[in-house]
Amino acid sequence: MIFNSPERVEALTKSWTGARLPDGRPLVSDDILDRMKLVTNDEAWGVLEKTNGYHNQFEGNWLNLHPELALSGRAVTATMVPHRPDLHEVVQGIGLGEGRSGSQNTWVIDTLQKNDVLVVDLFGKVHDGTFIGDNLATATRSRTGTGIVIDGGIRDFARVNELADFAVFCRGVDPTAIAGVTLVGVNVPIRIGHATVLPGDVVLGSAEGVTFVPPHLAEAVVLSSEDVRQRDVFGKQRLHEQIYTSGQIDVPVWADDIEADYVGWCEEKGLSVSQRG
Amino acid sequence: MIFNSPERVEALTKSWTGARLPDGRPLVSDDILDRMKLVTNDEAWGVLEKTNGYHNQFEGNWLNLHPELALSGRAVTATMVPHRPDLHEVVQGIGLGEGRSGSQNTWVIDTLQKNDVLVVDLFGKVHDGTFIGDNLATATRSRTGTGIVIDGGIRDFARVNELADFAVFCRGVDPTAIAGVTLVGVNVPIRIGHATVLPGDVVLGSAEGVTFVPPHLAEAVVLSSEDVRQRDVFGKQRLHEQIYTSGQIDVPVWADDIEADYVGWCEEKGLSVSQRG
Amino acid sequence: MIFNSPERVEALTKSWTGARLPDGRPLVSDDILDRMKLVTNDEAWGVLEKTNGYHNQFEGNWLNLHPELALSGRAVTATMVPHRPDLHEVVQGIGLGEGRSGSQNTWVIDTLQKNDVLVVDLFGKVHDGTFIGDNLATATRSRTGTGIVIDGGIRDFARVNELADFAVFCRGVDPTAIAGVTLVGVNVPIRIGHATVLPGDVVLGSAEGVTFVPPHLAEAVVLSSEDVRQRDVFGKQRLHEQIYTSGQIDVPVWADDIEADYVGWCEEKGLSVSQRG
Amino acid sequence: MIFNSPERVEALTKSWTGARLPDGRPLVSDDILDRMKLVTNDEAWGVLEKTNGYHNQFEGNWLNLHPELALSGRAVTATMVPHRPDLHEVVQGIGLGEGRSGSQNTWVIDTLQKNDVLVVDLFGKVHDGTFIGDNLATATRSRTGTGIVIDGGIRDFARVNELADFAVFCRGVDPTAIAGVTLVGVNVPIRIGHATVLPGDVVLGSAEGVTFVPPHLAEAVVLSSEDVRQRDVFGKQRLHEQIYTSGQIDVPVWADDIEADYVGWCEEKGLSVSQRG
Amino acid sequence: MIFNSPERVEALTKSWTGARLPDGRPLVSDDILDRMKLVTNDEAWGVLEKTNGYHNQFEGNWLNLHPELALSGRAVTATMVPHRPDLHEVVQGIGLGEGRSGSQNTWVIDTLQKNDVLVVDLFGKVHDGTFIGDNLATATRSRTGTGIVIDGGIRDFARVNELADFAVFCRGVDPTAIAGVTLVGVNVPIRIGHATVLPGDVVLGSAEGVTFVPPHLAEAVVLSSEDVRQRDVFGKQRLHEQIYTSGQIDVPVWADDIEADYVGWCEEKGLSVSQRG
Amino acid sequence: MIFNSPERVEALTKSWTGARLPDGRPLVSDDILDRMKLVTNDEAWGVLEKTNGYHNQFEGNWLNLHPELALSGRAVTATMVPHRPDLHEVVQGIGLGEGRSGSQNTWVIDTLQKNDVLVVDLFGKVHDGTFIGDNLATATRSRTGTGIVIDGGIRDFARVNELADFAVFCRGVDPTAIAGVTLVGVNVPIRIGHATVLPGDVVLGSAEGVTFVPPHLAEAVVLSSEDVRQRDVFGKQRLHEQIYTSGQIDVPVWADDIEADYVGWCEEKGLSVSQRG
Repeated sequence: MIFNSPERVEALTKSWTGARLPDGRPLVSDDILDRMKLVTNDEAWGVLEKTNGYHNQFEGNWLNLHPELALSGRAVTATMVPHRPDLHEVVQGIGLGEGRSGSQNTWVIDTLQKNDVLVVDLFGKVHDGTFIGDNLATATRSRTGTGIVIDGGIRDFARVNELADFAVFCRGVDPTAIAGVTLVGVNVPIRIGHATVLPGDVVLGSAEGVTFVPPHLAEAVVLSSEDVRQRDVFGKQRLHEQIYTSGQIDVPVWADDIEADYVGWCEEKGLSVSQRG
Repeated sequence: MIFNSPERVEALTKSWTGARLPDGRPLVSDDILDRMKLVTNDEAWGVLEKTNGYHNQFEGNWLNLHPELALSGRAVTATMVPHRPDLHEVVQGIGLGEGRSGSQNTWVIDTLQKNDVLVVDLFGKVHDGTFIGDNLATATRSRTGTGIVIDGGIRDFARVNELADFAVFCRGVDPTAIAGVTLVGVNVPIRIGHATVLPGDVVLGSAEGVTFVPPHLAEAVVLSSEDVRQRDVFGKQRLHEQIYTSGQIDVPVWADDIEADYVGWCEEKGLSVSQRG
Repeated sequence: MIFNSPERVEALTKSWTGARLPDGRPLVSDDILDRMKLVTNDEAWGVLEKTNGYHNQFEGNWLNLHPELALSGRAVTATMVPHRPDLHEVVQGIGLGEGRSGSQNTWVIDTLQKNDVLVVDLFGKVHDGTFIGDNLATATRSRTGTGIVIDGGIRDFARVNELADFAVFCRGVDPTAIAGVTLVGVNVPIRIGHATVLPGDVVLGSAEGVTFVPPHLAEAVVLSSEDVRQRDVFGKQRLHEQIYTSGQIDVPVWADDIEADYVGWCEEKGLSVSQRG
Repeated sequence: MIFNSPERVEALTKSWTGARLPDGRPLVSDDILDRMKLVTNDEAWGVLEKTNGYHNQFEGNWLNLHPELALSGRAVTATMVPHRPDLHEVVQGIGLGEGRSGSQNTWVIDTLQKNDVLVVDLFGKVHDGTFIGDNLATATRSRTGTGIVIDGGIRDFARVNELADFAVFCRGVDPTAIAGVTLVGVNVPIRIGHATVLPGDVVLGSAEGVTFVPPHLAEAVVLSSEDVRQRDVFGKQRLHEQIYTSGQIDVPVWADDIEADYVGWCEEKGLSVSQRG
Repeated sequence: MIFNSPERVEALTKSWTGARLPDGRPLVSDDILDRMKLVTNDEAWGVLEKTNGYHNQFEGNWLNLHPELALSGRAVTATMVPHRPDLHEVVQGIGLGEGRSGSQNTWVIDTLQKNDVLVVDLFGKVHDGTFIGDNLATATRSRTGTGIVIDGGIRDFARVNELADFAVFCRGVDPTAIAGVTLVGVNVPIRIGHATVLPGDVVLGSAEGVTFVPPHLAEAVVLSSEDVRQRDVFGKQRLHEQIYTSGQIDVPVWADDIEADYVGWCEEKGLSVSQRG
Repeated sequence: MIFNSPERVEALTKSWTGARLPDGRPLVSDDILDRMKLVTNDEAWGVLEKTNGYHNQFEGNWLNLHPELALSGRAVTATMVPHRPDLHEVVQGIGLGEGRSGSQNTWVIDTLQKNDVLVVDLFGKVHDGTFIGDNLATATRSRTGTGIVIDGGIRDFARVNELADFAVFCRGVDPTAIAGVTLVGVNVPIRIGHATVLPGDVVLGSAEGVTFVPPHLAEAVVLSSEDVRQRDVFGKQRLHEQIYTSGQIDVPVWADDIEADYVGWCEEKGLSVSQRG
């Protein structure tokens, strides 16, 4: 009841029609995850919000330990609430029945796999809300090779920070240990600030913030970014040459002559040209 | 999957061993609900936090439309997240399969019964986050006879405010209609500010704020309050008479001579005396 | 240059094709201003935002001295910025050339007329940002018979508050006098929180907040409200009678049988029926 | 060491040359305290800030239980800090040595006298920061007959609120009891928001907020207010009669003819005339 | 009417008596702009606030992309308000009549010249408030060679950040494009946080924040800084040598013997000596 | 009266039974101060809060100029309040009588000694609240060789920042000079955010924030950290080797077999083993 069943996870993510992990989460391919690392949050926004009407997939304002890292992986979601004894006893009973050990935050960490990204709704709690310290950071990194997104805090800042390839997005650091919270759901829909996250979303993290890409749109995001990057190179070159004004380049659709110029430029360089727009 | 099943609600609220409603919620008696109206949030705190270690059952900082009303009833919980099209489609499909009509906020209102209090996690959203207007307020009042607690907004302030016996605790008012949200759970554990709420909690609202009393502690809360009130009458009378100092009266346990004075005072007035402390 | 010329005011408000005041502001009729007092901000929102795409005409979160008053009048806009000596000298020179006396806040108050509502952008300043005290409140009330909207503070709270028919929307009270600001525009476009205000807008204030109704939409707002109010009476009556569910009533367009019921109800009561929705 | 000695209190308040209380605080007369009740914070500001350069004597943004009451009395100051065991043990030892009983907040309450106003720096703490509940409110009211100013919280809101003649300025209400704090000074200089308060200040509270009037300026404040009130009656009458514009009246010093008009008006009514401005 | 006319710009900035740009803005010399790059905001404050009474020329709390850069240039001001359709139509009509193309933010960028710094009042909007992305950043950099100051957001953070010599002061980053705003003034007085900015101000940006130096004071600021820097070298040397205490050095005017020591030190090093203080 | 006497400082810090400085402050040894530099705030928390019940010794959310530095030293505390002329005159009189010169912030700086860390309660003031600029930073660094902790601002950011071995924890930077404050206590108990600080506390600053270690617990903190560090090396090695799960390692007390494994590992490496837990 705390860990959502594969059937329920599948029912929640019906827009994805591809392969799934044993826990029911959509299995976006490793190739897409890799190419996603070159996508900016801005490009993802273009596909998600402008084209597909997803207005609530980005969240900023993080304490980002390694802004130079690109984070990409499959979301495992978890949500905690302020502790209440009767509920906590129920949750502990369920965990015991499932053979889980340690504190509740380790239950979910112990299930992580390569290329997973744990996303935790800890309702912004930092004091007594440190989901990981250096031990759990080390464990999470060993299992996933990616990073973690916590709407809450971390502890052992200095040592966690030394894990230079482990992306950490959190809200703050504090010396206290996690306390006064109860785990109420894993792989359920959660809210992270302004964004809604589902299990299996592709988590895309950079210096700008984190976008939670619905899995059925992940490939479109990657392809669009690859097109945008090519057009940006052209556009900025022409702006720098002062051939066009920013009023001509910074528009959704270029005028015919500029588009033709672009097509010519692509041909010159041996690049493929996507349809505009 | 959106409305929690009776079996799951029961499993979540195992500390309650009494009768239950058909939807699985604990059925605290109407008599306790009535007597709860005279309990202050401070008295409830004494039992919940000081005696039983429940630290997260109170939430303040409300826009309280009728601070003069005492709200008491059985919690129906609901939680919404920022809208995302794929999830919204799943939820609409489930609702359609269950024969629900209207917008998602009406789904849960249409299930309310006498002495229920709907408690909604709308993550503090007020603009485009108005869970009820005057029509839904009227409907909720007709069905429950109590009030509503919304961690979000309301609209039609003037007309909702005219319902003088309908207690409304919300975060603000706005002329916009509710938009950009998706219902993801009914009768699941929710967070309302600092508090964790379970289905069937006794909602106790007053000018001070709202306490969510776990059902198995509701009777103890009522009995304790009835004792405290009697001792307060005595204590304030003696302070006013300047017989004792506040340092003597405002302590957890009175000295023996004061306790004896109290017992005598009770006997004089024909009142029953509870054990001290 | 500080007081916008009639020609420029007219050019800014071209959507209004009716009569104008000598200072160029649109002259919405006194009859519409009177009927506007019965309109709620929610009803205005229905016409402005839902029907006409005006998303930024409402502002809430006021210190409202008389929430029981309905404020309605024609906006005179004014904007101040933090003081800088060179600019202040320029403004004083212009004022002197135009024969203005007293401090800059009185310049605009001295031009107010019956049914005007002064709307001041004081960028939320309360300490040293008290646009009016009791003298200027008395003067403004004598001239306009309406009220005032200040994104800033007032002083002399007790005495201003005694003017029971003078609606005041401000951000706070403080004993300091206004200081450290310079007037830079009258009857120019201003921003009040989330809203954009133009000279001649119909200011609609109530306990819920303030809507700035573009003058060319003022009549539509009034008519729509008069229709909504009639339908609300019907809807709430039927909800109370439990003939329909809130899911049936709280929708943008009623089903045909409900609409027919409504038409019959209107005929019974001798009321005119507007086209639906 | 926690309660400041009379010698040190006197040394801190050397601008006061009049009588003192046994604890060293300046003893502003009961007559001035009574007349102070008619003074507005705005008038006090005129004397304190504009004339005498006291910029930090007012604090607003209170939860004011009885905005209709005028609070006036002599400040007893107290300050608490977050609890630390070593310091707490020191303080308890000192209190024990001085024969004090009960919790530390009662120590100071037990010393209050008629017309005192306790002013407590509780650094804005409301949760676990409730300096008084109904017992201590009753005790404080019995001893002082005035009210209390707490930069922190209160509990037992409903019952404290019933003490209709007891002015309470605080930052919020909460059901928790005071916890996790240590008393470190009584009758020392304290900061309450933007204001600095010394023992013996005249506390002036109204709906607008609280001004802490240095005792040596208390009489000047009262006299000035009595003059301002007389001039305001004249000014508002003339504004209402539209004899003068607000630009003429709302200035620090009236023109000679207006002053002469005022003097005539006073003579007509048999009122004394103070020197202008 | 959106772009302020040269005549009106000149009238607004009368304290400047030197050369002007064709658009009316004061033309502080390139030499002063260059030397301004070595001035700290603290030194500018000394001249502007302490000596000349300009209290509102500094604004901090920026997201500063390149804190290591010194920004110096002539302000072009622009201000936007929340979108309203009637006003937007007026502005678009004016722009069309003036031959402007692209979205409104490009209008002003297309007019920028070498050593201009665009300063934009976007009222702190970041979500849907991204005034530039990488194309417009590239265009602005090509035209001005300086940087930009936006009381709002930017997008394309990663790519804008790569422009290592382009100073960007903004309030945040977001993947959304700019939306829901209307341009209402160019080269008008604007407010940026606590500061008032006029067209032609010298914008001085560093890690500490941004000072808007009125043009007629720019030379005095530069000269004073050059003097302060020389005295600081002396003062810190003597403090380090423990010849003087900080109480002797950290005062507005040095004692005669220290001043004499300084004069001697200057002579020794062949430096010119400015009048003290 | 402003500088606390040695007797009073000693009475305040009775838990310390070791040597003292002439001003009464506990004299934690230089050896402990040195070894403290390797302690993390998290390790200090383990001893202070978890073991000894000190809940209020850490404060985060600093502008930390050199997050790479470890700050360690003996606290000198100082507290200022908003300026009021009568109090300021008293304080100036006392300072004059004690032979102090310069402004009040220099009084305390002029008393600092090697390995002191000045901790200033400036109630978060940054504008007009800049306790040090480059001169005073240079002076403080020369005297202490450590750093400074200011709950307020600094100025001359660029130049202070160049002192690469001088740790500065403050709340912000501003070009203004300090103004409008009065010093009311040195070596008295002060509150810095959530923490209570006493004279002689060991100030421990790092990228994570600042812990104020009570002197009698300083050695225990150092010893515990040295143990934790050794166990962490072991635990992370075993987690990385995937020999144990995080649920086994991230617990307060290891299972017997893990403890035995650890003891063996220590023996292998020739390290001493502390008692567990």
